[in-house]
Amino acid sequence: MIPDETTILSAANRIREHVHHTPVITSRTLDQITGMHVFLKCENFQKAGAFKFRGATNGVLSLGEDEVSNGVCTHSSGNHAQALALAARNRGIPAYIVMPETSSRVKIDAVKGYGGVITFCRPTLADREGTLARVRQTTHATEIHPYNDHRTIAGQSTAALELIRDVTNLDVIMAPVGGGGLLSGTALAVHYFSPGIKVIAAEPAMADDAFRSFYSGQLVPSVSPKTIADGLLTSLGSLTFPIILKYVHQIVTVSEESIIRAMRFVWERMKIIIEPSSAVPVAALMDIAGKNGAEGSFVLGSRIGVIISGGNVDLSKLPW
Amino acid sequence: MIPDETTILSAANRIREHVHHTPVITSRTLDQITGMHVFLKCENFQKAGAFKFRGATNGVLSLGEDEVSNGVCTHSSGNHAQALALAARNRGIPAYIVMPETSSRVKIDAVKGYGGVITFCRPTLADREGTLARVRQTTHATEIHPYNDHRTIAGQSTAALELIRDVTNLDVIMAPVGGGGLLSGTALAVHYFSPGIKVIAAEPAMADDAFRSFYSGQLVPSVSPKTIADGLLTSLGSLTFPIILKYVHQIVTVSEESIIRAMRFVWERMKIIIEPSSAVPVAALMDIAGKNGAEGSFVLGSRIGVIISGGNVDLSKLPW
Repeated sequence: MIPDETTILSAANRIREHVHHTPVITSRTLDQITGMHVFLKCENFQKAGAFKFRGATNGVLSLGEDEVSNGVCTHSSGNHAQALALAARNRGIPAYIVMPETSSRVKIDAVKGYGGVITFCRPTLADREGTLARVRQTTHATEIHPYNDHRTIAGQSTAALELIRDVTNLDVIMAPVGGGGLLSGTALAVHYFSPGIKVIAAEPAMADDAFRSFYSGQLVPSVSPKTIADGLLTSLGSLTFPIILKYVHQIVTVSEESIIRAMRFVWERMKIIIEPSSAVPVAALMDIAGKNGAEGSFVLGSRIGVIISGGNVDLSKLPW
Repeated sequence: MIPDETTILSAANRIREHVHHTPVITSRTLDQITGMHVFLKCENFQKAGAFKFRGATNGVLSLGEDEVSNGVCTHSSGNHAQALALAARNRGIPAYIVMPETSSRVKIDAVKGYGGVITFCRPTLADREGTLARVRQTTHATEIHPYNDHRTIAGQSTAALELIRDVTNLDVIMAPVGGGGLLSGTALAVHYFSPGIKVIAAEPAMADDAFRSFYSGQLVPSVSPKTIADGLLTSLGSLTFPIILKYVHQIVTVSEESIIRAMRFVWERMKIIIEPSSAVPVAALMDIAGKNGAEGSFVLGSRIGVIISGGNVDLSKLPW
């Protein structure tokens, strides 16, 4: 069942002691460029470096003693892997992480650093799922899905919940969309707790399955997407898509060039490290600068909240 | 005359509306590595990207109408150039900046972006000073020195003043040292407002003129220093040195490898952009990890404030 108000408030309560209440920052230059008041909700400062830690923590803490006795597991090449490893360690249970052998050294090291037990697989969805099935069989660990799980979605919703409470009178909240965990959680938090706010997703044009799904009403899977925003490669899930279809107002797409430009802008001018996926909604805002009126929801002077999803970057491989 | 309590409080009051009261951030990982409680005072989030904006603003605002009517000037290849250009624009007067023709494109663009009028010179101290003399002759602008000026020093002292007020019971405050403006200001703020705190400077071993001056009691000039910490290349000044000699407790040096490692650590784990000069005191703290007892002032569990001096980095030229 789609998380209701109580479920979301319970999740917020459950994870409160475990997650950072992340800061919101602003930039006069960004406001000048966009002609809006932009508020960045900095989940790059979240534990394990991304909002994923909220969902993973809610997942791990929602399980009964019998369900966690054998640990938790997932397949992930990215932020969910680190988040789940840390969330499991905080509860004192093992985390079995299936990672593609092509995963970056930084991410592998981070998962190990949090005590995760890694099983490598080939970088195909089939092998990831097959390997995870074998790990589950061996360990009897409970799977925590990175996005297609209502406990995960409820956890992710708490970022927007904090933002709504910390910044009054927002007109719009933007979030990037990959599998849709963050976006669906954001849309639910807004729907229940501040329904006057419009929720607008931003997606790389090179991985626009959510855009096409949203406007066709049919779940279109992501087919070999190629984008620098490596957190947004996955397709929407069977649980996230209906929520997005119902509660999200608009999805916009941005070019790779815009993503890199926005990422570099935030690094250079705001002095914070954001990963390419986080730059996607910032890129959308910078793109519409000077095109005011073209996009109905973005009105000069609007107050725009942006969820900066994470800050995990391989510093040895920067796009400039 | 060395800035007294009143002078520093007046500077703080004068610049309050113009500068950011920057945040203090912590990192559990950094605390674990060092065995101390470390508080980073984030002047990388200051306007124009560095603490320099405090001194430049105090300098510009301290001048009488007659002194500013023809604008201000300086020679600088770095953060003071940007800071003075912005401080001058905020007062509505021109800033004439002499910059070596070898300055990075990013810094030149930033100075231009703040409306500074640039005159290029050859990258030698003689040509910088000669060119500035000609600029002064032509424009009759008032020089604002980057560090060897009591108004600048009083402005820089306000960073430590904020830190002392925001974080109680610090045992040590660390700052990097180049020309000594930040360090002397920090030492004065501590001396007047929280004299129980030890002030410890950190300096690149490859540019250790302050270290040698401090322990010999004689001002030793910097001779062709080569360090990645490009904000710390200059020698101490005739006004900063006596203050440092009197009020600073200790100066430690760090290797280039330590600086780069500390900078990367802060980027990767704390998700903030700091420039190499800012990494110097962090490097000193990370170096003494595991060597506890070797350095008298660093005791396990100590509360250490670190002034993160700036975040202006050329993202196209990273040291890894």
